[in-house]
Amino acid sequence: MKSIDLLITEAKQLIYFSKTDATHGNDTWRLKAITNGYVAIEDGHVVHIGSEDEVLPLVQIDSGTVTIDAHDKVVTPGLVDSHTHPVFHQTREHEFEMRVQGKSYEEIAAAGGGIRSSVRGVREASKEELKSVVRKRLDRFLSVGTTTIEAKSGYGLSLEDEVKSLEVIRELNDEHSLEMIPTFLGAHEVPTEYREKRDEYIQLVIKEMIPYVAENGLAEFCDIFCEQGVYTVSEARRILSAAREAGLRIKLHADQLHLTGATRLATELQAVSADHLECLDDEGIQAMASSKTIAGLLPGAVFFLGSHRYPPARKLLDAGTRVCLATDFNPGSSMTQSLPLMMTLGCLFMKMTPEEALMASTIFGAASICREEVIGNLLPGYRADVVLWDADDYRQIPYYYGVNLVNTVIKKGKVVFKIDHGQN
Amino acid sequence: MKSIDLLITEAKQLIYFSKTDATHGNDTWRLKAITNGYVAIEDGHVVHIGSEDEVLPLVQIDSGTVTIDAHDKVVTPGLVDSHTHPVFHQTREHEFEMRVQGKSYEEIAAAGGGIRSSVRGVREASKEELKSVVRKRLDRFLSVGTTTIEAKSGYGLSLEDEVKSLEVIRELNDEHSLEMIPTFLGAHEVPTEYREKRDEYIQLVIKEMIPYVAENGLAEFCDIFCEQGVYTVSEARRILSAAREAGLRIKLHADQLHLTGATRLATELQAVSADHLECLDDEGIQAMASSKTIAGLLPGAVFFLGSHRYPPARKLLDAGTRVCLATDFNPGSSMTQSLPLMMTLGCLFMKMTPEEALMASTIFGAASICREEVIGNLLPGYRADVVLWDADDYRQIPYYYGVNLVNTVIKKGKVVFKIDHGQN
Repeated sequence: MKSIDLLITEAKQLIYFSKTDATHGNDTWRLKAITNGYVAIEDGHVVHIGSEDEVLPLVQIDSGTVTIDAHDKVVTPGLVDSHTHPVFHQTREHEFEMRVQGKSYEEIAAAGGGIRSSVRGVREASKEELKSVVRKRLDRFLSVGTTTIEAKSGYGLSLEDEVKSLEVIRELNDEHSLEMIPTFLGAHEVPTEYREKRDEYIQLVIKEMIPYVAENGLAEFCDIFCEQGVYTVSEARRILSAAREAGLRIKLHADQLHLTGATRLATELQAVSADHLECLDDEGIQAMASSKTIAGLLPGAVFFLGSHRYPPARKLLDAGTRVCLATDFNPGSSMTQSLPLMMTLGCLFMKMTPEEALMASTIFGAASICREEVIGNLLPGYRADVVLWDADDYRQIPYYYGVNLVNTVIKKGKVVFKIDHGQN
Repeated sequence: MKSIDLLITEAKQLIYFSKTDATHGNDTWRLKAITNGYVAIEDGHVVHIGSEDEVLPLVQIDSGTVTIDAHDKVVTPGLVDSHTHPVFHQTREHEFEMRVQGKSYEEIAAAGGGIRSSVRGVREASKEELKSVVRKRLDRFLSVGTTTIEAKSGYGLSLEDEVKSLEVIRELNDEHSLEMIPTFLGAHEVPTEYREKRDEYIQLVIKEMIPYVAENGLAEFCDIFCEQGVYTVSEARRILSAAREAGLRIKLHADQLHLTGATRLATELQAVSADHLECLDDEGIQAMASSKTIAGLLPGAVFFLGSHRYPPARKLLDAGTRVCLATDFNPGSSMTQSLPLMMTLGCLFMKMTPEEALMASTIFGAASICREEVIGNLLPGYRADVVLWDADDYRQIPYYYGVNLVNTVIKKGKVVFKIDHGQN
């Protein structure tokens, strides 16, 4: 018997998810908690979980085995943040201050702020400059318990600058412990120089960007910001159809600020996820329930825009739709990397239970990037992406809000982050 | 010339507050930022601040001087959290889950949950058990940039258990770097055993608890939860008048869930602060503006109860009232210790500027515990309670929300916390 690489012992609560009977045509997962739980890890994967008596007889421990005592900790799968925009240069706290003083997000955008301001920043920065600022953000994702993110381009809006952004993701992915799944978002805005000839830009996206990105394996997904004043549903259909033909999977920013019908387009095109959904109506909820498309809910973007219109999570869940939570990390409408705080928002304002909120940040986040059989769970065979929390009960993760309860983060079986509260 | 103990060099932004002309009868403070700022610290106090040229000629540096390079950091006064309830035993995440599933905070309280459930926990715990759980909470306050808290009793509700709670605060204050200013809150609820004879409990508070607490120097302030179903305005007047006679200063939980008139009582009794104020009307705002009473705003308790009714911060500020922000840290209605997140809530939902939010968490927090000439600022003569933030601009503190930007915390001139992001 080969010795294991890592053993987590006596977890106060060991959380994993188990599949039950199918309902509504979708898989039903339920949260399971093992008291005094053990996790055995070998070659970057979970090999056994259970009580001491269930796990120890099955494993070989030797001097090379790392053991982590978790008797005062909750152990969960690493969090999966399935919607982020991390490749920007400057932060935009001055726009935050303007909003507080009464300007709307749309007014700031119209005055040259917003996404366009980040586009200028990305275009002016070299790839190395971008990598240097993005790298620090990746450290912070790990420190708040996130082990995998979906990472979008979308502040380049030219072939050259979109490729630069996706290369930043690829190169940092190779060197950093955080795992990134790249998404091409060339249709995040219509760039300023194409304002009067938007169709030329759409042609550029379809004829040049998508083929280049797909052929060079720079992205796995293609996303679009379908919204009043940005891209119409019919433009989105053209762009996403081209992406699908090129072999990319599809995501949409849908029905965020206005009900445009983008969610129904998502289900029609069998998108992997439709994200935002703040303005979704009952017909759209039905369309989602009849599809396999996952609802990607981003409560941080509601909160950070000072709004109270949260997406209809409860109705979506009750209709049987799979729901994931993500941060929407970006410098304009959601400057956070904390999935635990998104769970708090989900519980308080979207009436998700702590169980639903945790599943939405792990197993269903993984489903939203087509990796639900690889990450987001701790059943044997899953990748050993694990978080140890300074907590007694998993419900404390959304309950004890605004502070970081993460103690240790394990990625592919290796400890990649450990909090040290320093001297005091 | 004596050598200094600690020198902070080249702060990207060094933030302090400067007094300008008086308006509305209250002091007016404005935020000032020094680029490439230096702070010299001696015997636990700030002795000089300014540019390199202004500070270095005035100080003697030798091998005993600790130097901290802050070229990529924002430096601010330590945060002052002026309203907390840290002396409880168990957390109450099960009630959080019940609320998510549709029970109101008041229903949970009526069913034996809420404050009463924490009262059972404190009564059953020994002083040492309490100290052990509270101590960890103090570490966490420091880690999020808070160097001083006001700490209330109020989960004992008997002479013995209120004294035990205040002794926990006193003993931990002696051993821990975080500074605590104790407040007696024996009138936090009417204890279960006095439900049918509430006046006997009020007599106990007035005749036994207040005299004991005052004579033994166990608290500096007396507070009361004046609210429908808890204590009436007339009961509050009796209790607070007795407290004032015994030499305690006065605070009130006022006009939180209902407009009771408690804020006007606060101004009438010249309370140091009236806290909550979610239901305050224009007449109450006028009463506050004509008084020296500080408005203690607790947006976390609005947020965490799933409400959107924030206190009228903008009107209070525009009327010239001094406003402080606090976490209201407690296991029922605000389970957080993060003042930066309170600043975010203040900006987004109470239209405070980042400048106002930072002052509300430092200099005005200090004013709310009668220490505005000692802490909450970095002018020479103030105590050297300092936070170094991983940030470029102080506005990032509320903007970059839900993550902890604190890098280093200095209390009374000594480094008491330093983040170590560990291996990765």
